[in-house]
Amino acid sequence: MNRDKLDPWGSSSIKDYSRLQSEFGIEPVAPLLPRFKRPSHHLSRGIDFGQRDLSRVLDAMDNNRPYAVMSGIKPTGDFHLGTKMTADDMVYFQSLSTKAMVFYAVADVEAYADNGLSFEQTAKIATRNVADILALGLDPERAVVYLQSEELRVMRLGTVFSKGVTNNMLKAIYGERQIGLYMAALFQAGDILMPQLPELGGPKPVLVPVGADQDPHIRLARDLAAKYHEDYGFIPPSSVYHRLMLGLSGSDKMSKRAAASLLTLDDPPKDASHKISTAFTGGRDTVEEQRRLGGRPDICPVFDLYRFHFAKDDGHVEKVHDECAEGVRLCGECKQEANGLVKAFLEAHHKKRDSMMKDARDLMAKSRSYLSSAGK
Amino acid sequence: MNRDKLDPWGSSSIKDYSRLQSEFGIEPVAPLLPRFKRPSHHLSRGIDFGQRDLSRVLDAMDNNRPYAVMSGIKPTGDFHLGTKMTADDMVYFQSLSTKAMVFYAVADVEAYADNGLSFEQTAKIATRNVADILALGLDPERAVVYLQSEELRVMRLGTVFSKGVTNNMLKAIYGERQIGLYMAALFQAGDILMPQLPELGGPKPVLVPVGADQDPHIRLARDLAAKYHEDYGFIPPSSVYHRLMLGLSGSDKMSKRAAASLLTLDDPPKDASHKISTAFTGGRDTVEEQRRLGGRPDICPVFDLYRFHFAKDDGHVEKVHDECAEGVRLCGECKQEANGLVKAFLEAHHKKRDSMMKDARDLMAKSRSYLSSAGK
Repeated sequence: MNRDKLDPWGSSSIKDYSRLQSEFGIEPVAPLLPRFKRPSHHLSRGIDFGQRDLSRVLDAMDNNRPYAVMSGIKPTGDFHLGTKMTADDMVYFQSLSTKAMVFYAVADVEAYADNGLSFEQTAKIATRNVADILALGLDPERAVVYLQSEELRVMRLGTVFSKGVTNNMLKAIYGERQIGLYMAALFQAGDILMPQLPELGGPKPVLVPVGADQDPHIRLARDLAAKYHEDYGFIPPSSVYHRLMLGLSGSDKMSKRAAASLLTLDDPPKDASHKISTAFTGGRDTVEEQRRLGGRPDICPVFDLYRFHFAKDDGHVEKVHDECAEGVRLCGECKQEANGLVKAFLEAHHKKRDSMMKDARDLMAKSRSYLSSAGK
Repeated sequence: MNRDKLDPWGSSSIKDYSRLQSEFGIEPVAPLLPRFKRPSHHLSRGIDFGQRDLSRVLDAMDNNRPYAVMSGIKPTGDFHLGTKMTADDMVYFQSLSTKAMVFYAVADVEAYADNGLSFEQTAKIATRNVADILALGLDPERAVVYLQSEELRVMRLGTVFSKGVTNNMLKAIYGERQIGLYMAALFQAGDILMPQLPELGGPKPVLVPVGADQDPHIRLARDLAAKYHEDYGFIPPSSVYHRLMLGLSGSDKMSKRAAASLLTLDDPPKDASHKISTAFTGGRDTVEEQRRLGGRPDICPVFDLYRFHFAKDDGHVEKVHDECAEGVRLCGECKQEANGLVKAFLEAHHKKRDSMMKDARDLMAKSRSYLSSAGK
């Protein structure tokens, strides 16, 4: 089995991010870092490691020209630390320019096709998800949220694109799949290219922040942008890829498919604390061994909690890393510290999120009315 | 090659309608004829030859209970004598009960996937098509017209159904196809089952009048109705099949794919007259031979003009048939008579159709507002 397969619908495991470059043509982010005045923690900590055509979006920023930040999140449950990463990137890239407009697709069609959730179930979840991303800092003034299944533009584009692909092309990108997933993929391409429709401002750079395992969707959307350039003037979408958060139980990717691996933004601090205390770590079999050899932060989901989300700053990440690797820091104390950070975050987030449910509903209503009147 | 393949997207040829019964399970209409008080010319002339579960719709009629008549017509151009047959059936089965509601799907998604017409092109054509069916007698008071690509219910059902089928199942029904056609097929199943959604009155008998070559769509919709019965309460849709009109040039099915074979409801009488005068016939090589052996009305598209559309009554059809078969009637005079009938029809139809463009727009607007408010 190829351990570096990119499967947007599976539990991907990526052992060697640099190989994505040679195998799939994902470019490194590092050479572009000097162009960011205040890099996000994703950028400064190497979490956003790869990109395609990111410079096109940076050019737009520099020239004060409009661009869109677009991503889709499946409304299968509360945000967890994996989906939070996509949300954090959307918030960050929106904050870099007053000309940035966020399009947040609630991927209910994919949630149905991939997870079997009904549109009624997902509509309820979606509002809480929107409150989550608002609490994470999204500016509702420059954001459009929509349900895939309510947006005819997405459905129509998906239909249009279905004629621009062959079964072999889809098979090459996604492997042999049932038609439901292929359809979901075409609708996703519709999501990615929708911000460039004339009534939504026309062709513009679009940045899609996603987990590395979602690159197949980006490749498909870029293929289709080229294929339909003549009809729609599409500019190939840009992308930025974040590393996949390890599951707490030592599973591959943090995912709703592996419940024990999951820390959600809705977890009561007590539950989170329990999950952290029983989490897999990069520690050694005995204290003596750990003191002597050091821990292994690179395979440790508890270290990921610091690095990906909760460390106070980059220095803090470095400190935890070095103390662990040098055998100074043991897992028990490390978990305890993480626990305190997670607890503080969750308590603050719950409060903020709960106070933003009305804002979430308002944003969804405003978006609905914007989209239904656009181009009329 | 199997001459009796049923290909909804090709130029089907059906040489032996009775074989459809044994091969595909289509039931004959004949045993149900006594249940019709005033059979249409399609019924009395054996043009509507097959059905599935038609008795369920007849039961609803007899008991004065609601049923729907549903069909889709691709907006690829003006109605022609082939599409007129579907329209005639919709009008007839609507007329049989005040509890009958027609759903007319403008199959623009299929027109896109199969014929590459843009939604902008098809939207224009659709209004003329609606005026055509109104001129043919559709009662706008009990009719809902919608564009597939504008109806989220169809798109959502298609998406739901995409999870209920396997690639192998689609391949068994349609053969190996590109995903665009499979998607169009799933949306079509959405069209067929939409009238049973709760906000549109809930489960009820639905009759789908179609050409025999469209049976694959009916089989798929019936499979899906059974598969989703628990979730939606779907009753398997009923169907009635008409024979395929021969192309004037002797081509298989009258179809936009074979322009010379085509007589459209928009043809100027002069053009129609030219097409008829140059049409293929079931005549013999010489007058002498024809007098001696008789013509062959069963393979003659000119005879089809009488039988399928323009004969004054059933006796007239019989007369033309017998005179031809007995060698009394020659092709020249037969074409001339047909020509007169077609001319009279076209002149009257054009007048009626042109006067109904506003009614067509009104019906479409009324339908749009009905559908968008249903269930809210």
